[in-house]
Amino acid sequence: MQDSSHGAQEGSDPVFVLVRPQLGENIGASARAMWNFGLERMRVVDPRDGWPNPAAYSMATGAGRLLDHAGHFESLPEAVSDCARVYATTARPRDLTKELLTPEEAAAAIDADIQAGNRVAVLFGPERTGLTTEDVTVASAIVSVKTNPEFSSLNLGQCVLLMAYEWGRRRLDPLPRKGELSPLATVEHVERLHGILAGHLEESGYFSARDREPSMRANLRNLVSRLPLTEADVRTLHGVFVSLRKAGPKA
Amino acid sequence: MQDSSHGAQEGSDPVFVLVRPQLGENIGASARAMWNFGLERMRVVDPRDGWPNPAAYSMATGAGRLLDHAGHFESLPEAVSDCARVYATTARPRDLTKELLTPEEAAAAIDADIQAGNRVAVLFGPERTGLTTEDVTVASAIVSVKTNPEFSSLNLGQCVLLMAYEWGRRRLDPLPRKGELSPLATVEHVERLHGILAGHLEESGYFSARDREPSMRANLRNLVSRLPLTEADVRTLHGVFVSLRKAGPKA
Repeated sequence: MQDSSHGAQEGSDPVFVLVRPQLGENIGASARAMWNFGLERMRVVDPRDGWPNPAAYSMATGAGRLLDHAGHFESLPEAVSDCARVYATTARPRDLTKELLTPEEAAAAIDADIQAGNRVAVLFGPERTGLTTEDVTVASAIVSVKTNPEFSSLNLGQCVLLMAYEWGRRRLDPLPRKGELSPLATVEHVERLHGILAGHLEESGYFSARDREPSMRANLRNLVSRLPLTEADVRTLHGVFVSLRKAGPKA
Repeated sequence: MQDSSHGAQEGSDPVFVLVRPQLGENIGASARAMWNFGLERMRVVDPRDGWPNPAAYSMATGAGRLLDHAGHFESLPEAVSDCARVYATTARPRDLTKELLTPEEAAAAIDADIQAGNRVAVLFGPERTGLTTEDVTVASAIVSVKTNPEFSSLNLGQCVLLMAYEWGRRRLDPLPRKGELSPLATVEHVERLHGILAGHLEESGYFSARDREPSMRANLRNLVSRLPLTEADVRTLHGVFVSLRKAGPKA
């Protein structure tokens, strides 16, 4: 361990540990992806190009603070020494002596670990090779993303993004949508709209094929009541009908 | 529309439409992300640097076929002219006159649309600005990723990755894990292990503090039965205990 702490510890979020990352760009992209979903505790183990890494800062724009506070370690056991539960991400799960989880299941398990007061680490391997069998020996469970068997390679930043996204799905506030969609029009307002439309159409001779009139009327009424029209839509359509009548028949 | 078709049409997967993408690298990363999750139908609308784009091919390594078959269009309405349902991804949902979905909800809705025989498009906006209000007018619903409000910018490739990942969660085969974890040891085998261990410990005087013996025995038995030991673990521990006895007391 080369700094005085294991990195930022505040909060109760998992630590993301990049094990022997190669490209600074991927370290920076990982920092961005973490911060996109509110995660800020990063640790790096033996990065190929040393530490701090200028290329990581170039890519991390807006999330450079995570790099400032990242813990830097010589070895994986040192990096996770204070953690009670360790999840290892792998592209092709080889070590089947441990539980294998999807990112969604892992996020749920991590959430439960943290609720129970345990500190959690998630491990991400180097770009080319992924975590070794030895790296995985420190892990409590294995995480793998379900991918196309013909094309399963996710890069480091993408793997971090998917784990962070699943964490965010659990912990971030929901999308702000309640009560913001215009409410749907009541049957009364839809019926009034339909009545006005039907009246216009009667005048214009739309229903003049008398034998088909009942089915034409039913079709129109079903069409109007099937659409999820809002009150605003109903007002718009009243205006549209008035305006169509004003336009008169085409010359 | 500039080619003879709307791109590869086989199968029943959504079409991902990149609207006015700027960087070829992001187009290539989008192709990779799609193919990672088994999606192969891409369309591009008015890409800034023309089409085909060499930088897209450089980045797409392994997924270049998607670019070969991608449809190339002058305008968004042309690109989605054959689609019945259109989902628009946006970073900050402004147009709240349409249903707002998470990527997971959108994947479920798209799956239902496709099961009902409808062709579906998912729109992704340009890097800098995202989809315009006008682009969104062709959409049936809006998709937004729940992100950290302090740092919500996802790049084009990341947005495509998350939508493709959610599609893969529904459609790809599950992780191959059934029956592959070694089964847990039966109570009979765990009890036998515990009995042998307790026997060794009796001989070694571990329980010699007579007033604490009952609680020490209970602790040990609880410890052994709480661990999720497999049959293989039990065999390993039998060997470990034998070997510890052979080692004898430390000099």
